Amino acid sequence: MRATTIHGAFDIRVSDVPDPEILRPTDALVRVTATCVCGSDLWPYRGIHPSREGGRIGHEFVGIVESVGDEVAAVRPGEFVIAPFTWGDNTCRVCRLGIQTSCEHGGGWGMPDREKLLVDGGQGQFVRVPLADGTLVATPSVPDDALLPDLLTLSDVMGTGWHCAVAAGVGPGDTVAVVGDGAVGLCAVIAAKLMGATTIIAMSRHEPRQALAVEFGATEIVAERGEAGTARVMALTDGLGVDAVLECVGTDESMQSAITLARPGGRIGYVGVPHVGELPLMTMFWRNLQLGGGIAPVRRYLPELRDRVLAGEIHPGRVFDLTVPLEEIPEAYAAMHERRAIKAMVLP
Amino acid sequence: MRATTIHGAFDIRVSDVPDPEILRPTDALVRVTATCVCGSDLWPYRGIHPSREGGRIGHEFVGIVESVGDEVAAVRPGEFVIAPFTWGDNTCRVCRLGIQTSCEHGGGWGMPDREKLLVDGGQGQFVRVPLADGTLVATPSVPDDALLPDLLTLSDVMGTGWHCAVAAGVGPGDTVAVVGDGAVGLCAVIAAKLMGATTIIAMSRHEPRQALAVEFGATEIVAERGEAGTARVMALTDGLGVDAVLECVGTDESMQSAITLARPGGRIGYVGVPHVGELPLMTMFWRNLQLGGGIAPVRRYLPELRDRVLAGEIHPGRVFDLTVPLEEIPEAYAAMHERRAIKAMVLP
Repeated sequence: MRATTIHGAFDIRVSDVPDPEILRPTDALVRVTATCVCGSDLWPYRGIHPSREGGRIGHEFVGIVESVGDEVAAVRPGEFVIAPFTWGDNTCRVCRLGIQTSCEHGGGWGMPDREKLLVDGGQGQFVRVPLADGTLVATPSVPDDALLPDLLTLSDVMGTGWHCAVAAGVGPGDTVAVVGDGAVGLCAVIAAKLMGATTIIAMSRHEPRQALAVEFGATEIVAERGEAGTARVMALTDGLGVDAVLECVGTDESMQSAITLARPGGRIGYVGVPHVGELPLMTMFWRNLQLGGGIAPVRRYLPELRDRVLAGEIHPGRVFDLTVPLEEIPEAYAAMHERRAIKAMVLP
Repeated sequence: MRATTIHGAFDIRVSDVPDPEILRPTDALVRVTATCVCGSDLWPYRGIHPSREGGRIGHEFVGIVESVGDEVAAVRPGEFVIAPFTWGDNTCRVCRLGIQTSCEHGGGWGMPDREKLLVDGGQGQFVRVPLADGTLVATPSVPDDALLPDLLTLSDVMGTGWHCAVAAGVGPGDTVAVVGDGAVGLCAVIAAKLMGATTIIAMSRHEPRQALAVEFGATEIVAERGEAGTARVMALTDGLGVDAVLECVGTDESMQSAITLARPGGRIGYVGVPHVGELPLMTMFWRNLQLGGGIAPVRRYLPELRDRVLAGEIHPGRVFDLTVPLEEIPEAYAAMHERRAIKAMVLP
């Protein structure tokens, strides 16, 4: 089959790789109907994170089940399924606590598992899915193609934005600031609105992203950054700061900004892999700020978010502003790297 | 009057200072019947935090109202009152959010206020209490002397331990580890038990403190520190870690330990002034750990905790294992510094 491989900084290729097969009775084989490029894929793409020469990449996909191992009971061939960006059993002690990203038996896509068996990346034609019963979430019937983008976001960005709002304890009547206008930040706006926030301040400098933030529920746009951005948010909150900050970037600048935006006793959710210097713990202590979040256990939220998408309540797929065939995935990486695209969908 | 003053590292004296008077219509004058030395007083005592030569010190006290300014309505002369370790109006936007330590008009004891008027320290015979209506909490009648220690802890350590458990979201059925066996850590054990924790692991090396922790509700004692302590907690939790960690020390070692004890998705409350190096944010991210807390807004909890003390439900005053007259307060500092005493009560 054809699958995406990475060969160093800025060197993404589509390669012939072995067709995957059912290797364990708990495996399912999924034909990928849509995948995408993640902001976190840009770390190895940019050479900031190391990558293995020829390694698989991609961790977001939806598709049709082709075949299943003997012990798979929850999904059947022919079903449409959504994969969360990590795989796992969804039954161990840690999964039952809702932290499926720390599953005691799970792992990540595109890398060897605990027994050194390669698990496919998501950016390819097929994926062998380990622990399929725990990993995959099916839809009641094969959905219309028009819903593909919305459902594909549940693999990662919509669930990640949702987790950020959960981690920040967003509730009815809250004033919320969203730091970051990438796909996750935009999805966090959707989450904040659904959780009842009444003021949602989107920090965004880019006009198309501002427009999407407003469409998703943002009530205020702040284009300024740093001290000027903080001053604007303070002006919008009568000098108090916001109840909850959703930090959806993960850089030192964005995290430091997030901390300045919170009111005393405010809550900061963060979901971007942190590339952050020292946290200002003294400031956080004197102001009683709470920091929560981390790698999003999107599997926890998948059934609920699937139902909201199927009911037409949310349209997170609007974050895709570029669609390319698999053979052109290098262009998808380049477009996202150069910020020409918010998020790129890839059709194998 | 006589009041405690600090003159440099390890130089605590009792000095003649001017008798306080009502200076503003919102002031009350309180005759201190009991005060105490705080773990945080040891920072300037040890010279780790700077102090002003001859500055006042102490921020925990209870007493009898002597007189009140014209605008004071909530407390009357002759009433017994408890003062939280910061003063404030309890009505501003921030106080109404429950973060009275960040009151828009309040401040700390023993230092000049925003208009450069000296506010007395707590370790003296009398205290001029600013914003008395918001600051002080009265009891329905003057309590028996036997209740003095319990009520005095509500000034700080009991409310601070309580805040730690609130910040860590302790709830019914939780497994909790308490790091620190000082007065705050011991009070945090009381809080965890009242909030429904079923396993409470007290990290303590000192036999008398271990005994008190058990009396307060600890179900397990772990005497080991560092990696050995973590291994013991892991063994007690089948390798999972605890739901909530109550970090009641504030050193780098204690904070790093706290982070290793939490299960994936676990919550860490912290209430000691942090003297901490860099937080392991990557670890916290991958394990979805939440960090909350800060300087405790004990005023928020005072009415409830007062009622629990008066009902005989809790006996946090057991943390006092030394009582001295005001003139001997230097010995109280020395005993706490040398860990001969958990906490010292001082009778003016």
